[in-house]
Amino acid sequence: MSDGDFTAAIVIIGNEILSGRTADQNTPWLAEKLNEYGIKLMEVRIVPDLPDMIAEAVNDMRTRYNYVLTTGGIGPTHDDITAAAIAHAFSVPLHEDPSARQMLEDYYGTEELNTARLKMAVVPEGAVLIDNPVSGAPGFKIENVYVLAGVPRIMQSMVESFVDGLAGGDPVLSNTITCDLLESQIADDLGKLQEKYTDVDLGSYPQYRGGILGLSIVLRTTEASQLQNATQEVIALIENLGGQAGAVTVRSDREKRSSA
Amino acid sequence: MSDGDFTAAIVIIGNEILSGRTADQNTPWLAEKLNEYGIKLMEVRIVPDLPDMIAEAVNDMRTRYNYVLTTGGIGPTHDDITAAAIAHAFSVPLHEDPSARQMLEDYYGTEELNTARLKMAVVPEGAVLIDNPVSGAPGFKIENVYVLAGVPRIMQSMVESFVDGLAGGDPVLSNTITCDLLESQIADDLGKLQEKYTDVDLGSYPQYRGGILGLSIVLRTTEASQLQNATQEVIALIENLGGQAGAVTVRSDREKRSSA
Repeated sequence: MSDGDFTAAIVIIGNEILSGRTADQNTPWLAEKLNEYGIKLMEVRIVPDLPDMIAEAVNDMRTRYNYVLTTGGIGPTHDDITAAAIAHAFSVPLHEDPSARQMLEDYYGTEELNTARLKMAVVPEGAVLIDNPVSGAPGFKIENVYVLAGVPRIMQSMVESFVDGLAGGDPVLSNTITCDLLESQIADDLGKLQEKYTDVDLGSYPQYRGGILGLSIVLRTTEASQLQNATQEVIALIENLGGQAGAVTVRSDREKRSSA
Repeated sequence: MSDGDFTAAIVIIGNEILSGRTADQNTPWLAEKLNEYGIKLMEVRIVPDLPDMIAEAVNDMRTRYNYVLTTGGIGPTHDDITAAAIAHAFSVPLHEDPSARQMLEDYYGTEELNTARLKMAVVPEGAVLIDNPVSGAPGFKIENVYVLAGVPRIMQSMVESFVDGLAGGDPVLSNTITCDLLESQIADDLGKLQEKYTDVDLGSYPQYRGGILGLSIVLRTTEASQLQNATQEVIALIENLGGQAGAVTVRSDREKRSSA
C-alpha cells in the first residue's frame, strides 16, 4: 500500500454498534467520500459511550492523521457525551455557543427550546460550528477533529457542508476484476505483480456467491496509467492460469467527483 | 453502562473496509454472538494490512480485555500478513505447524498443496490451531487472541468451533421500544430513569424511516426483573409525554442461546 499525503481516521461512538443492534453505515460512506477528495482512511475505532475511551481514541489519532472525524453522541439525551469527551481530550472547558443557540432557536423556535435541546448548543471552547441542514443542531470542529452526528443522513449533510474546504491529494482510482480462480492459484503471480507495481495497492478478496467461492482482485492507485497497465496484466495473468476474468468494475472517484 | 465481568475487542484487518469497497459484516455477528455468551464487546478497530498497525492494535487491547478477536488476512496471498503481525506482537518466531499442514493436505490433497497454500500452515510459535470446517485453512489462538478468517461464513464456522469453551457471564437481555416522540422531548425523563436503573444501559436512537424522524429506546441488562420494570417505566413515560409506544421488541439472547 502506498501511503497518500493526506490521511484520516474515524471514531464511531455508539453502544448500539458494539451491541450488534445496528450495523455501522457511516464508515463505507465516509471512506468513499474521503477517497474522492484524495484523503486516505487509515483507521476506524468503534468505542462505547464512555468519555475516557472517546478522548483516548481522539488523542491517539489526531496527532497521527490529518483529519479525525467522530460520529454519534451529539444529541440531547443523557448518553450524548461526545462534546464533553472532546473538551476533555483537548483540556478545554465546555461553553454555550451563542451561534449554536441561535441555530437551535431558528430551527425549533424560542418557545420549543427546552433544557434538553439547549444541551446541543454546548461545545468545547475554541470549537467552530459545523452546519446541520437536516435537523438544526450543529456539529463542530476543533483543530483537526470534526465532530458529527451519528444518524447517517444528518452526518452526510454535515460533511457535504465542509468537505470542499479540506486539503486533499489526488483522488484514488480503482478497478475490480472478478475471476473463477482460487486465491491460492493466483497468489504467487499476484505477489510478483505487487512487487512490480509499487504504486498500486493490489488486494485479493475471496467471497461466497450462491455457495461458490469466487475471487475479486482489487487495484487501487492515484496513477491512471499504472492502473490501466496493472489491470491488463492481472487479466492476462488470470487467463494464463486457465481462469476466466469477469467484467472490470471501474470506480473512478475522480470522475464521480467532477460529475457531482 | 454497567461493565460486565467479561470483555472482548475486535481487530478488523482489511484495506477493503477502509477503502469503502466492502461494508464490515463481521462486527454485528460477533457482537451478537459474544452477547449470547455474556461477553461484552468493548471496542473495534479497523486497521489496514500493515503489520505494525495490526500488532499495535492487538497489543493495546489484549491486556485490557479478556478476549481479542482478529478477522482477515490469513489467506495465501501477498496481502495476508496477519500471522506475521501477530508473531511480531507477541515477539515469537513463525513456524510451519505440522497439524496445520496435515489439515491442508487433508483438504487439498498432497499434490495440490502448493507453496501459496502452505503459507497458511505458518503460524506463530505457541499458537493453538482453530478448526476451519468450511475451507480447510485453520485459524489460531495465542494466549487470549483469536485469529480468524475475514470471509464471514468461514469466520463464523471458526467461532462456532470454540465459543462454547469461552468463559463468559450472564447473557445480555435487551428490549427495544419505538415511539413517535422527539429525542429532546424525552431526554430529561430518560436521564432520570437511567439514574434510577444503574444496572440497565438505556440508549436512545433517532432514525429516519420514510422521511420521518422516529425514536428507538433500547434497554440492555443482564437482570431480567430490572429489564421488565424499566421497560414498563419507559412505556409509561412515553405515554405521559403524549407519545405512543410501539411494540416492544425483545431480544433475549439467553433464549436464543438455549434454543440454538
